[in-house]
Amino acid sequence: VSVDDERLARITLMRIAEPDDVELSAALSSGAADVVARLRAGSLPIKAAEACRRRLDGYDPLRDLELADASGARLVCPGDPEWPTQLDDLGLRGPFGLWVRGETDLRRAAVRSISVVGARAATGYGQTVATELAAGVAERGFAVVSGAAYGIDSAAHRGALAVAGVTVAVLACGVDVPYPRAHAALLCRIAADGCVVSELAPGVTPSRHRFLVRNRLIAALSAGTVVVEAGLRSGAGRTAEDALGLCRVLMGIPGPVTSVVSSGVHRMIREGGAILVTNVAEVIEAVGDIGADLAPVQRGPAALLDSLPGECRRVFDALPARRPADVLELARESGFGAEQVIAALGQLSALGLVERVDGGWRISRGMRRAGA
Amino acid sequence: VSVDDERLARITLMRIAEPDDVELSAALSSGAADVVARLRAGSLPIKAAEACRRRLDGYDPLRDLELADASGARLVCPGDPEWPTQLDDLGLRGPFGLWVRGETDLRRAAVRSISVVGARAATGYGQTVATELAAGVAERGFAVVSGAAYGIDSAAHRGALAVAGVTVAVLACGVDVPYPRAHAALLCRIAADGCVVSELAPGVTPSRHRFLVRNRLIAALSAGTVVVEAGLRSGAGRTAEDALGLCRVLMGIPGPVTSVVSSGVHRMIREGGAILVTNVAEVIEAVGDIGADLAPVQRGPAALLDSLPGECRRVFDALPARRPADVLELARESGFGAEQVIAALGQLSALGLVERVDGGWRISRGMRRAGA
Repeated sequence: VSVDDERLARITLMRIAEPDDVELSAALSSGAADVVARLRAGSLPIKAAEACRRRLDGYDPLRDLELADASGARLVCPGDPEWPTQLDDLGLRGPFGLWVRGETDLRRAAVRSISVVGARAATGYGQTVATELAAGVAERGFAVVSGAAYGIDSAAHRGALAVAGVTVAVLACGVDVPYPRAHAALLCRIAADGCVVSELAPGVTPSRHRFLVRNRLIAALSAGTVVVEAGLRSGAGRTAEDALGLCRVLMGIPGPVTSVVSSGVHRMIREGGAILVTNVAEVIEAVGDIGADLAPVQRGPAALLDSLPGECRRVFDALPARRPADVLELARESGFGAEQVIAALGQLSALGLVERVDGGWRISRGMRRAGA
Repeated sequence: VSVDDERLARITLMRIAEPDDVELSAALSSGAADVVARLRAGSLPIKAAEACRRRLDGYDPLRDLELADASGARLVCPGDPEWPTQLDDLGLRGPFGLWVRGETDLRRAAVRSISVVGARAATGYGQTVATELAAGVAERGFAVVSGAAYGIDSAAHRGALAVAGVTVAVLACGVDVPYPRAHAALLCRIAADGCVVSELAPGVTPSRHRFLVRNRLIAALSAGTVVVEAGLRSGAGRTAEDALGLCRVLMGIPGPVTSVVSSGVHRMIREGGAILVTNVAEVIEAVGDIGADLAPVQRGPAALLDSLPGECRRVFDALPARRPADVLELARESGFGAEQVIAALGQLSALGLVERVDGGWRISRGMRRAGA
């Protein structure tokens, strides 16, 4: 089984299975290609087997690869340099893979990120607070993760974009589907400066189940989730539960007790799951507690570099200050072979020190700002 | 030393000393009359001795008794049947005595009460919430304790009055001083249906120190304090600290994070001292936890009566259903002597089963409602 077969098998699973299928995930220990083969043969005893097998009829994963490619999306699989390792905390609830559209390295963005979610039927108050909060955390070098929905989600994305920050939209539909349609331009802007992400196959439309399971990705990607407004029964409430289940920091922005879209947030705070936060500093303080290991950049770039193996340091030093370099140039400069360079870049990328761009690799935005 | 001398000595201390003087309180173990005598002789070694001695020159406590009487106020001292025993939790910070103006028995009101306090510079939102909350808890049989100030305090009193509930105003000036002047009519209404209370001598004007120490009485009188709006530095913050120090339940009503008068409340919730509450039911649930022993009426009036000594029960049964009766009538009806009747009334009053009114004693409002 070659690597390419494994990737094609994961593309296949993203098309034929529903996300968050723990039975299917459990079978993955024998490899995705094996799982697909057993599904095709009807020999995998899981509940979704028959539905998956039907969808396999005449299916060609290369077609999804072409569709993704046409929308500028790349495949990121568990273990890839760009894979956000936080998602591994989902265990058997983790995605089979991700389609990622956008200029930013997803792993680098997620390693230092905060999710901001809330009601679609948000008030002016909630949207203002979400925008300002997102802008504030983005200015402090955190990517803002949300779901591109109406209301709080889009206010959060726009806040990050307004300060030229990084923002990540996790969709409950294909990465190439402009949903909601009114946010087509917003999604383009997010992809330009950040990432648009989905675990669903290209072209897939959203459904209630897909919205709900999508929320676990928003909760898992970041160190903490801020709920800005939420009614008593809301999708944001599901994200909040997921965040708590994953030992992420859950935060809530209070509002008037007379506002129905603040009542869900107040309940989260009352029941002890959510920390009441009122501004950017309190949010960053809260994620700082457990974020230290997720966000090593906070320890200071110089100290971080010193702690790295010598070959990482040498590859980092080989990067030009203001332009990208490709692997061959870095191999030449550092004196290492291409494989050693690629391994070092993987580590540097995981720590947010370098990022992949058109034309190769460069020192990441945060590091350039820090003057490293 | 007769009882009357002790009472006159307490009236004297309320005039010549500042409240919340723990040195002076510590000396009270030998009796108030003894303390006054030693102050007069210059033989009490406390910091305030000289100031107290100067104020004793030509002072006659009967004059204060006349002043209080003229404004319809009565003296309530520690150990009196009307003394709210919750104040004993203040220890050496307890008041020397209280001047009480109003139709309601203070002990009965306080035994089942909730304090509602907050900013003078309250918003329309805060005042609306305070009024509705106070009305709601008053309808559930709780007296509403507050400080008669502008903003949240007066909104709380008005809420209780609007539903013909009991409300208690604790003043930072003499019980006969209409402060703030714009609240003169409000204070009259509070006295008519509830109590106006002060530990200061008649005619005394408010000062910053008096406002601050007054807050400990508001916190101590009730099972729980709700802060509706408060800036980061506020008198309500002091009341909140007092409430926590006294192991009372501290509650906070959240508001928009953009409102400066909600920031103090949010801090109380963030720092773990205050429970976030959003409505009447949550407030009552919160005080219910520790309020069980403070509010025996919650156990049900019939059960409570059954648990009383036989003479209490007989005196209670001797009370007419719809009008007051005096001690002589009750003695005749119950077959007890006047002193036994008075002792029984003291116990019944402490439990909130009877109340003192013009013309004698009657079954308390709460008990009449309960159909006992």
